[in-house]
Amino acid sequence: MTRVKDIERVYIQAHASAVGREEGRGPYGACFDFHDESNTFGADTWEKAEGEMQGVALTLAIKKAKREEPIDFLFSGDLQNQCMASAHGLLPFGIPHFGLYGACSTLTEGLALASLVLDGGKAQRCAVVTSSHTAAAERQFRLPLEYGGQRPPAAQWTATAAGAFLLSHEKTHVKIAAAMAGRIFDGGVRDSSNMGAAMAPAAADSILAFLKDAHADASDFDHIVTGDLGTVGSALLLRLLRNEGVMLSNHVDCGCLLYDLSTQDAHAGASGCGCSAAMLSAHFLPLLEKGEAKRILFLSTGALMSPSSVAQGENVFGIAPAVLLEHVP
Amino acid sequence: MTRVKDIERVYIQAHASAVGREEGRGPYGACFDFHDESNTFGADTWEKAEGEMQGVALTLAIKKAKREEPIDFLFSGDLQNQCMASAHGLLPFGIPHFGLYGACSTLTEGLALASLVLDGGKAQRCAVVTSSHTAAAERQFRLPLEYGGQRPPAAQWTATAAGAFLLSHEKTHVKIAAAMAGRIFDGGVRDSSNMGAAMAPAAADSILAFLKDAHADASDFDHIVTGDLGTVGSALLLRLLRNEGVMLSNHVDCGCLLYDLSTQDAHAGASGCGCSAAMLSAHFLPLLEKGEAKRILFLSTGALMSPSSVAQGENVFGIAPAVLLEHVP
Repeated sequence: MTRVKDIERVYIQAHASAVGREEGRGPYGACFDFHDESNTFGADTWEKAEGEMQGVALTLAIKKAKREEPIDFLFSGDLQNQCMASAHGLLPFGIPHFGLYGACSTLTEGLALASLVLDGGKAQRCAVVTSSHTAAAERQFRLPLEYGGQRPPAAQWTATAAGAFLLSHEKTHVKIAAAMAGRIFDGGVRDSSNMGAAMAPAAADSILAFLKDAHADASDFDHIVTGDLGTVGSALLLRLLRNEGVMLSNHVDCGCLLYDLSTQDAHAGASGCGCSAAMLSAHFLPLLEKGEAKRILFLSTGALMSPSSVAQGENVFGIAPAVLLEHVP
Repeated sequence: MTRVKDIERVYIQAHASAVGREEGRGPYGACFDFHDESNTFGADTWEKAEGEMQGVALTLAIKKAKREEPIDFLFSGDLQNQCMASAHGLLPFGIPHFGLYGACSTLTEGLALASLVLDGGKAQRCAVVTSSHTAAAERQFRLPLEYGGQRPPAAQWTATAAGAFLLSHEKTHVKIAAAMAGRIFDGGVRDSSNMGAAMAPAAADSILAFLKDAHADASDFDHIVTGDLGTVGSALLLRLLRNEGVMLSNHVDCGCLLYDLSTQDAHAGASGCGCSAAMLSAHFLPLLEKGEAKRILFLSTGALMSPSSVAQGENVFGIAPAVLLEHVP
C-alpha cells in the first residue's frame, strides 16, 4: 500500500477567496476576491461572521465557474467548536454535506477527499470550503481580542479568511494529480502558543512519505507549500527534513506570506484553516494557471488540540494531508 | 444528479463495539464486545477515556477481521470540541486519517465516505470509528454530571459507546449498497435539550430523498433505522413523513433501544455518535449477517450546535447521512 493515491482526472474548475481587514492590508491584499474591512461580513457575532465569509467565498467560486451542473458533495470545515461556522454559512446552499475536522489542515483534507471521490467516478462535481476567523478563534482557544492579552513570540495570528474550490472532471489548467491523508503525529509539544512546533513533525512525516511513495526528489516540485507552520515551524521543518537527508530549497509557508511580518504584528505568522485556503486561491493557483509553476506539493497543516485538552496539559498533535497540484498546458 | 450513490462492491469486513456501564446494563448489554463498568477505560480524564474506548473498538474490529492488509484510510469522529477523542484514541494506530464532524451523524457520514472512496477503487480497506462519552459530552455541552442538574423530559442521555467498522472489497454477508450525504437542515428548534426535534426534519428530508432517488417504497426495507432521535424525535419523524404521504411501519431508532427507558432514567432516549455505532455493530449487523434482515436503510442523525451557538441563541440544525445495508447470501 502506498499512502499517496494517484488522481487521474480531477481539475480545479473555479475558486475564490474572502478575507478580513488585516489580510486585505497584507502583501497579497490585492489578490483576494473579497475583503471586509469590518471583519463582520454583515453578521452580529464573530462566529456567524465566519460562516458568512464561507458563504461569500463559495458564492463567488460558483459564479466564476459559470456552470449549471449541481454539486454532488460539499466538503467543509473550520476551527469553531463543532464546526459551527460551516453549518451556519453553508446551510443556505442546501448541498449534500460532509463536515470535516482537521484543524488548520482541513483544506487539503477536503481537497484530498473530494479528489478521491471524484476520481473514482462517484461524483461529477464537488466543492471544498474552509475558513477561520481571528476573533472567533482567539476567544475560543485563548482569550477574547478585547482582553488585549500579550502573545508570546512563537504565537501565530489566526487568519480571518476563507477559500472555496470547485472540483470536477472538466479539463482546466490545474489538475490534482495525487492525494494523501495525514497521520496524527505527537511531537511532544504542550505549548498551545507554539503550534508551528506541534505541526512541523507531521509536515515532515507527510513530505517524506510523499517523496518516498512518489519516487520523487524535493527538487521535482516548483514549490513545496505548507499551510501555517509560521516562522518557528518552518525552521523546524527544514531541520527535521535535513536530519533525514532531504534539503528543501523550494519550501514556502502560507503562514509566512499572508501578513507582512515586519509591520503587521502577527508574531510567528498566520494560521487557521482559512490561511492556506485563501493563499492557495489567491496566489498559488494563479501561478499554476499561468504556467509560472508546473508542480506544487501542497500540505495544509493542522494542530489538533482543544481548549479542554490544553487545560488538561495534553500534548498538541499535528497532521498534514497533501495534494499534488499540476499545471495543465 | 441523484443524491443516492449506488455502491457496487463494498462489504463490512469486521466490526466491534465498546460501551460503558449504563449501556452494559441496558437491553443490548450482552451484545456489545466490551464494556467498562468504570466508564474510564483506564484513562485519567473522561475526554481521554472516550479516546481509549475508540481504541478498544478499533483493536477488536481489527482482531476479528484476521487480515494483515494495511488500512488505507481511517475515518473518525466524536462530539468533543475539535474531535479530541479521535485524535487521542487513534494516534497510536498510525493510520492515514480523515477527521470528520457530523455530530451524532458521524457514523453514517464516515460509512458513506469510506464506501465512496472504496467503491471508486481509490482504497482497498478503510476503517470507520465513532464514539461519544456521557461524562465528556455533558460537561462540555451542558453541565458536569457531578452537578446533578435536572434534565427536561425531551433531553437524551449521551451514550458512552464506540463502534468500529472495517470495510473492504472482500465479499462478506453484509454489503453497503448505497450511500448518501445529508443536507444541513434548520427546523427552527432552539432548545438544545430537545435534539430529537432538531434532527427529525433532517431525517425526514434524507428518507424522502432516498425513497425518491432509489424509486423505493418504505416497505422495501426490513427496517429504516435512525441514529438517535429518541422518543420525541421519532414521533416527530413519523408525523413529518405522514404529512408527505409516507407511512413508516418499520422505523426503529437506536436512541430508543440502547437503554430500558422505563428503568434507566434516560428520559427521551440515548444520543451521541457512539449510540448508532454501537447499536449497528451489536444488533443490526448481526441481523443482516444471519439473514434475519435483508435490507436496512440506516441513518445516523446529527444535531449541529455548539456551546457558543446555544449561548448565542442560535437554532440547532440537523443532518442525516444514510447508507443502505444489504444481506448477501
